[in-house]
Amino acid sequence: MKIEEIRLEELNPKKFIEGKIQEISSVIGNGLAISALSGGVDSSVVTILGHKALGNRLKTYFIDNGLMGENEPERVVLLFKELGVNVELVDAKEQFFDALKGITDPEEKREAITQTFYRHVLGRLVKDSGAKFLLQGTILTDVDETVAGIKRQHNVFEQLGIDPEQAFGYKIVEPLIQLRKPAVREVAKTLDLPEEIYKRMPFPGPALVARVIGEVTLEKIETVRKATKIVEEGLHDTEAFQYLAILHADKVTGIKEGKRDYGLQIEIRCWDSKDAITGSPTRLPHDTLYKLAERITTEVSGVVSVTYNITKKPPSTIEAV
Amino acid sequence: MKIEEIRLEELNPKKFIEGKIQEISSVIGNGLAISALSGGVDSSVVTILGHKALGNRLKTYFIDNGLMGENEPERVVLLFKELGVNVELVDAKEQFFDALKGITDPEEKREAITQTFYRHVLGRLVKDSGAKFLLQGTILTDVDETVAGIKRQHNVFEQLGIDPEQAFGYKIVEPLIQLRKPAVREVAKTLDLPEEIYKRMPFPGPALVARVIGEVTLEKIETVRKATKIVEEGLHDTEAFQYLAILHADKVTGIKEGKRDYGLQIEIRCWDSKDAITGSPTRLPHDTLYKLAERITTEVSGVVSVTYNITKKPPSTIEAV
Repeated sequence: MKIEEIRLEELNPKKFIEGKIQEISSVIGNGLAISALSGGVDSSVVTILGHKALGNRLKTYFIDNGLMGENEPERVVLLFKELGVNVELVDAKEQFFDALKGITDPEEKREAITQTFYRHVLGRLVKDSGAKFLLQGTILTDVDETVAGIKRQHNVFEQLGIDPEQAFGYKIVEPLIQLRKPAVREVAKTLDLPEEIYKRMPFPGPALVARVIGEVTLEKIETVRKATKIVEEGLHDTEAFQYLAILHADKVTGIKEGKRDYGLQIEIRCWDSKDAITGSPTRLPHDTLYKLAERITTEVSGVVSVTYNITKKPPSTIEAV
Repeated sequence: MKIEEIRLEELNPKKFIEGKIQEISSVIGNGLAISALSGGVDSSVVTILGHKALGNRLKTYFIDNGLMGENEPERVVLLFKELGVNVELVDAKEQFFDALKGITDPEEKREAITQTFYRHVLGRLVKDSGAKFLLQGTILTDVDETVAGIKRQHNVFEQLGIDPEQAFGYKIVEPLIQLRKPAVREVAKTLDLPEEIYKRMPFPGPALVARVIGEVTLEKIETVRKATKIVEEGLHDTEAFQYLAILHADKVTGIKEGKRDYGLQIEIRCWDSKDAITGSPTRLPHDTLYKLAERITTEVSGVVSVTYNITKKPPSTIEAV
């Protein structure tokens, strides 16, 4: 079934919000639904829409997969508390790291995240809560990329011929599926979500797993998390579409304390883009780049080399995995 | 034994040349010596000094290890023919690729190159020719890095406690061992070598092996050779100290013809440096970088992503392996 896009210029955010609140109410009826909040703009908007439609009949969870940015889970829970939405923090770190053990292929890594998230963690939460529905922030770009065979986005099922009710035991409701990112941001703004949310940089479904080449371990996630924090601090003021750090599996020769050190390499990407469909590397000043490299090689243990990606999308993709 | 450096500012190139010609004559006596020319400024200067000292009693070989830049062997042989020096081209491609099979560790790769070059290929040439001496273009920076334990340079033996006569069956004469690169260039100029030689960019002893992360295969060398050619064409006018392309073993997700393509990544490095001891990435214009990335992803089969290294040396090294 072809999904009809609502373009930014034809979007009436107020009407869209009213319509979606009604739609959610009528689909869920008197039942319970759950929302898995990641703190990204998509899941944040869906959570607020669900909260407005269902009140306490929406259970909102933040699944801590151990793969998020530094202090991300606690920050998001606090932020929504201030918005009047109670979010339960679910510690699922062990389950995710267990599922990722020994996997190096990017699509298999994404699949491990998807199965752990939807089948094991959310499946149990839905069952325990008695909910029959999951509200989910899938947007049109997720569908496009999955259908085109570029990347399997972890929140796309129907278009792949997967029936979530059969596969995981619950139905999925996707209020944002006709929108792309700029339209979602507009809706978020109209919902009075804070700038921290509606301007929030896209963050991939598989989280930091998308930023580790090769097998994912706790140690590697720690390394890429530290590098990510430095990149985010250093590039925050650029207002680029998205910026990120990638940890390579390849090791390169470097020098630490005058001796050979066969060490790690971090790749920085910073994108100019409107919609993530195409993108160009941001023309960052050389001093900004060199300062990032210096901070990363000084502050992140084991890193001896930092690169900046200079390829457009296509042929690159935004994330490396 | 501490080697006494002759600094650029205290070098008298004419006197240096006269002295070295006499020294080579007296060391070799009436015997034969051989020179293994790579086309780099160091081995070119040594070949000319040897030629001036010994005339036909110097045999000069270009060992084609299959790991050089495009058409490099033929170009160097022709150039020296024009200078009146007869160079014999030795095809040793198979021996080098056989020796590299299955090796991924950088130091082991360097060692495989060293052993194949000095023991197997040169060892046989020396034996067949009846020579007892190898003239070699070792410079002080090679010694420093090897002794410091940063990188084992493939032409450094004595300082590692290796007796080449015992190990390979010939003595090594190193006329340039007190000089660093800028001084060698000055000597080359005074010897009337063409600009193509005395301005020639440094090229690593292990050749393109230094630019392939992980196992080296014929196919990977082809890939990095093509990328190298594009980088050299694109950055020739910058007059940077050194610029190079590195092929990673890691694969990254990309898009080709609208489909997912799990492809190769090339890293570009371009160095500002005086002596290779320290270095900074050159502040290349963004357009230059983007054009390189576009050419490489278009013209080099399998490449979907290109990065630019933004780390200083130290903690990086000039080459990746």
